[in-house]
Amino acid sequence: MMARALRLAERGAYTTKPNPMVGCVLVRDGEVVGEGWHQRAGGPHAETIALQAAGERARGATAYVTLEPCAHTGKTGPCAQALAAAGVARVVGAMRDPNPKVDGNGYAILRAAGVRVEDGLMEAAARALNRGFLSRIERGRPWLRVKLATSLDGRSALASGDSKWISGVPARQDVQRWRARAGALLTGAGTVMMDDPHLTVRLGDDTPFVPPLRVVLDPGLATIARGHIREGDAPTLYLHAPDARVPRGFEAQHAHVAVHAGLFDLDAVLRLLAERSINEVQVETGATLAGAFLRAGLVDELLLYVAPVLLGGRARPLFEGLHIDAMTQRLDLHIVETRRIGEDLRVLLQPRHASLPVVADAGAPRPAASPVAHG
Amino acid sequence: MMARALRLAERGAYTTKPNPMVGCVLVRDGEVVGEGWHQRAGGPHAETIALQAAGERARGATAYVTLEPCAHTGKTGPCAQALAAAGVARVVGAMRDPNPKVDGNGYAILRAAGVRVEDGLMEAAARALNRGFLSRIERGRPWLRVKLATSLDGRSALASGDSKWISGVPARQDVQRWRARAGALLTGAGTVMMDDPHLTVRLGDDTPFVPPLRVVLDPGLATIARGHIREGDAPTLYLHAPDARVPRGFEAQHAHVAVHAGLFDLDAVLRLLAERSINEVQVETGATLAGAFLRAGLVDELLLYVAPVLLGGRARPLFEGLHIDAMTQRLDLHIVETRRIGEDLRVLLQPRHASLPVVADAGAPRPAASPVAHG
Repeated sequence: MMARALRLAERGAYTTKPNPMVGCVLVRDGEVVGEGWHQRAGGPHAETIALQAAGERARGATAYVTLEPCAHTGKTGPCAQALAAAGVARVVGAMRDPNPKVDGNGYAILRAAGVRVEDGLMEAAARALNRGFLSRIERGRPWLRVKLATSLDGRSALASGDSKWISGVPARQDVQRWRARAGALLTGAGTVMMDDPHLTVRLGDDTPFVPPLRVVLDPGLATIARGHIREGDAPTLYLHAPDARVPRGFEAQHAHVAVHAGLFDLDAVLRLLAERSINEVQVETGATLAGAFLRAGLVDELLLYVAPVLLGGRARPLFEGLHIDAMTQRLDLHIVETRRIGEDLRVLLQPRHASLPVVADAGAPRPAASPVAHG
Repeated sequence: MMARALRLAERGAYTTKPNPMVGCVLVRDGEVVGEGWHQRAGGPHAETIALQAAGERARGATAYVTLEPCAHTGKTGPCAQALAAAGVARVVGAMRDPNPKVDGNGYAILRAAGVRVEDGLMEAAARALNRGFLSRIERGRPWLRVKLATSLDGRSALASGDSKWISGVPARQDVQRWRARAGALLTGAGTVMMDDPHLTVRLGDDTPFVPPLRVVLDPGLATIARGHIREGDAPTLYLHAPDARVPRGFEAQHAHVAVHAGLFDLDAVLRLLAERSINEVQVETGATLAGAFLRAGLVDELLLYVAPVLLGGRARPLFEGLHIDAMTQRLDLHIVETRRIGEDLRVLLQPRHASLPVVADAGAPRPAASPVAHG
């Protein structure tokens, strides 16, 4: 039942941000009497939908919830009260909600109302599901995913900078689903100049999603008025050095970040994005910026599309600036999942210094094509 | 039934060399009445074993054979005659035996005796199974497999040359099974100097195998009297430039090969090994020699163990000497199979220029621990 609730929760992957994904299954006498998932921020919570579906049959039921029911009156009433009021006998949660407004209060409300409460069922999977939300709440920075396409011999571009295309069409379509679950897509001025990406989500069908914020790290704002990255509906945010001159008309689209020795304070970049309620950042850039995030120990997961091609020793490395002279200095990662995507291989990895939470079960979710408005 | 015969045939992977692997299943009225596989060169053929098992029940049966039954009196009598004499009504073969001594004659003998003959069932799988034997017979050179361990960022060693160990213990154990099916393990003088490998097969159990010939490409015979490569039961062959001085005592262990501009004629190396009845060569060497085989278009498959580590931009490339300046020059491969081996990822690939035969279903075989003598 908790596995079912987790699958329901995941349907909200493209739309609940910045809220966590939550699923709820109500069971009475071994029968599912109601279920639901949180579909979008501002919309009804998973518990509310499940209780509505169950009606009177909620009385005496067990509720399986992937996250502690909320205790606060936000855009909807507190779910903990609603579950108790509906006569639910027992609540089985996967994990406490670390949000300071909840953080055990939801369970406390339930217990005070005489509801039996258990917690921690499939907690690892629940934490993996909401790793972005948890990272923001618990660490004050988004979960950082670096997406890279590489050749078999570990090259991200030719010496000329040309990287179109290392991976195949199916891999590039797969990237869109990972973009859709991100709160922000981050790139650098160099990539904007060289590749001129749109950095929009193109799922190829009518699956609803909240468009991720596009973020350009551009110290001197050299690219602020150019490129496809300014087209489309998604907002764009330029992060620049404190002394950069911001052109007229861009007042709402920029913020400055400290620069040390010509390099952005990447910690500060991530704190700024967390303050703007970004749960997951997907970095899509070249070897230089990717290497900088890696060296700073800020990479939480690496989404690598390995194409079965060789680009040779003159081509650019996967990460710039990694200077390793002994096996003891090597950077160890852990393979979370591998999958064939067309002719390519998708490998999801986490660095061994692994910042929590660890991904137990990954893979870009496939939310149902539910009737949720585009954001 | 043919799939069963192929699985039987594969049990001989470590022991039949230089003979092909062959499996035979005899079926009468839907029931398997006898089966067998070729276990070692000089031993009984698959058909002989199956006929012995079936006895009188062979009369009127259908024989599924993974390779055309032999027509020549070699170390055993011709199988085609034996099948006809036993009263087998129908023979279904996966492929013709291209060995000039057979090459359709086996089927002709059967047809002349009134046996119904069909051919080509699961031919791709049968060709993949015996790709080494077929390469030697049809192309006059062994099937060449390059085994490499690489980091995620495509590095085969640190700048210092240190490559111990990129991949983990399970991957290194897995390599042993691929070694066991090879007729020869080939390396270069540089690897002998740097890594001092044994290049023996260590399966860790009592699975029988014929030890592969160890081949060292050493133009000046600088390494002829040194290293672990001279220890153990397996023979060692030194290939050298025509002008190298061969020390006393090594008369039986060397051969010279033409050298052009300081580089071995790799085509000639492979022809020489085919003449010595080598079906499969596994190259275990550094980036220089691996790159040379690749540039010469002589690599039939690439067995890559990808470790989830980063070694950085100063480390050595996967292949030396691949100079690619445009996407159109890139070297395309095809992923045949991927598998997790411990913490590492094993990827079997074939270059797109793919020399025949293509591997339909790969993976190192696990032969049964059958009572076959060590070679």
